[in-house]
Amino acid sequence: MNTSSQLGKLISKIGPLDTKAIDSALSRHNTLTKPPGSLGRLENLSVQVAGITGQAIPMIQEKVVIVMAGDHGVVKEGVSAYPSEVTPQMVINMLNGGAAINVLSKHFGLRVVLVDMGVAAKLEPHPELISKKVRQGTSNMAVGPAMSREEAIQTILNGASVVDTEIEKGLDVLATGDMGIGNTTPSAAIAITLSGKKPQEIVGRGTGVDDKGLNRKISAIERAISVNQPDPKDGLDVLAKVGGFEIGGITGAILSAAAHRRPIVIDGFISTAAAMVAVSLCPQVRDYLISGHCSEEQGHRLMLKWLELEPLIDLNLRLGEGTGAALAVSLVEASCKILAEMATFGDAGVSNKE
Amino acid sequence: MNTSSQLGKLISKIGPLDTKAIDSALSRHNTLTKPPGSLGRLENLSVQVAGITGQAIPMIQEKVVIVMAGDHGVVKEGVSAYPSEVTPQMVINMLNGGAAINVLSKHFGLRVVLVDMGVAAKLEPHPELISKKVRQGTSNMAVGPAMSREEAIQTILNGASVVDTEIEKGLDVLATGDMGIGNTTPSAAIAITLSGKKPQEIVGRGTGVDDKGLNRKISAIERAISVNQPDPKDGLDVLAKVGGFEIGGITGAILSAAAHRRPIVIDGFISTAAAMVAVSLCPQVRDYLISGHCSEEQGHRLMLKWLELEPLIDLNLRLGEGTGAALAVSLVEASCKILAEMATFGDAGVSNKE
Repeated sequence: MNTSSQLGKLISKIGPLDTKAIDSALSRHNTLTKPPGSLGRLENLSVQVAGITGQAIPMIQEKVVIVMAGDHGVVKEGVSAYPSEVTPQMVINMLNGGAAINVLSKHFGLRVVLVDMGVAAKLEPHPELISKKVRQGTSNMAVGPAMSREEAIQTILNGASVVDTEIEKGLDVLATGDMGIGNTTPSAAIAITLSGKKPQEIVGRGTGVDDKGLNRKISAIERAISVNQPDPKDGLDVLAKVGGFEIGGITGAILSAAAHRRPIVIDGFISTAAAMVAVSLCPQVRDYLISGHCSEEQGHRLMLKWLELEPLIDLNLRLGEGTGAALAVSLVEASCKILAEMATFGDAGVSNKE
Repeated sequence: MNTSSQLGKLISKIGPLDTKAIDSALSRHNTLTKPPGSLGRLENLSVQVAGITGQAIPMIQEKVVIVMAGDHGVVKEGVSAYPSEVTPQMVINMLNGGAAINVLSKHFGLRVVLVDMGVAAKLEPHPELISKKVRQGTSNMAVGPAMSREEAIQTILNGASVVDTEIEKGLDVLATGDMGIGNTTPSAAIAITLSGKKPQEIVGRGTGVDDKGLNRKISAIERAISVNQPDPKDGLDVLAKVGGFEIGGITGAILSAAAHRRPIVIDGFISTAAAMVAVSLCPQVRDYLISGHCSEEQGHRLMLKWLELEPLIDLNLRLGEGTGAALAVSLVEASCKILAEMATFGDAGVSNKE
């Protein structure tokens, strides 16, 4: 089977939510010792997870954040406050447990899975580092396509295969994360192409470029779109022409998690761009998505609006790595415990509403 | 020493934040392997906790939610969707671990401390139930003061004594919670009196009254304020005339936690009214407060604005019990771990900003 057929097969496995499980979860909520609806979005979350998993009382035990790393040829255009060498340095920092995502994952009980999707350096083999490298960094999208269409498909399949393996080890909820110097630039280009918004509405300062850097970034994105003419109706074309390897890896991870009926908590700007590609390839995926947080990065809220998602947390984070998703996973887990563990009015002998 | 002097002594112990610890925490943040400021409000939180505790790298281990329970004479006016008998029933449900706060506390690692501040029933002694009962429910504030000024002082001291004891056992962060059928009514009356807002801006549906119930609630509050004329410049007068025993208990808990330099995560509508009383008694308390969440209950945001607090979470909760605070405590804990456990640029060999 060629890669294009493999991708088609992956997408064909993604089905609708289980309405029976949704109805059961909704009914159960009304028997629990609290005024109906008083736990607000925590209730909705558990009902969504019931629909995703097909379990009336879903249990979340194995929590996994997958951090996809990749580099970007467009960094040559001066779009980032940090040099590309920081990508492999941060991968090593993550392997050593020193990055923010490590600290938050330890705190909230998530397993960190690190993937080299296309870092522009030869990384030493490490038992904790999964190599799914497509190439050492994308080409500069400001002058031509970031990658070929075949590479885009391979990137998605590589990302999906990581989730396939983790599901075998145990994965009840997927949090998505990224590491890649310069990756707010292709993410913004994807968002602009798919949503039809203007660069000025979407492009932000990333890790912190100054005004000149911001202008260089907008210019690079405008040239990338003008030179490559990505087709907004074709998610693969968009990923290939103005995307990135870690972005496509996250797209693949999302598709695989949805195919396996697992809830997916997406992180900020980069993960959301990847989710937009996933939804453009398979609109059904939307029902499996939970927005972990709203990024401080300009444009993120518009991207979430395009996805029809409301973020769980809004704490002005703009770090990536999956940090916002990691915070939110614990809320998803808590929502399911509410459904599973609270007493009912009958059991507790509590009088119901007059 | 009389109770009035005891209260004065408690308030006199509350000092300013430690600016040296704040500066150290700020400096350390800039050395950690992340773009400066990229963890947004998580960074600010850890800096606030540094200032509160006086520790440059604060550690949060013992997390405690104190749920204060009390009943309200004003329930006679038909202001709640549930009967007063639900208050003791829910206290027993909490003792049995079946309430939402039990489930969330277990998930996030908080110790639940239950206090009978003034439930309108004789509760059986239970090793997990602290009795600080002032009286079996307040008087109906719609026709006269809810309690005497002396009772208001005693209520605050009783609440403070609970925290004094818990600090001895270990308490690194206090989350406040409440249980009391009808208690959004006195909380709204407190908020209206202290903020000068109109009842229509503050009063909401609580556990879910219909339009008629809402009108009865507004009418009861208007009569309570008109009959009692609480003095907005005198927090004790407000608590006595239109408050409640669990509300005053939370006020006392907040004052004691601040005196012991512990961060305080306040829950929703009721805890926020209690915090307003605490701040009116001692404006310095404000610096020790963290708003856990924004309640779905109308008026809560205006109350937070009066306190100059921005909520951490906004998930349309309106349950009370400390549920919103319990969710947020884990974020406070996470923020301190970020400060303590992340690698520095130097340690990790990561290149800093260009």
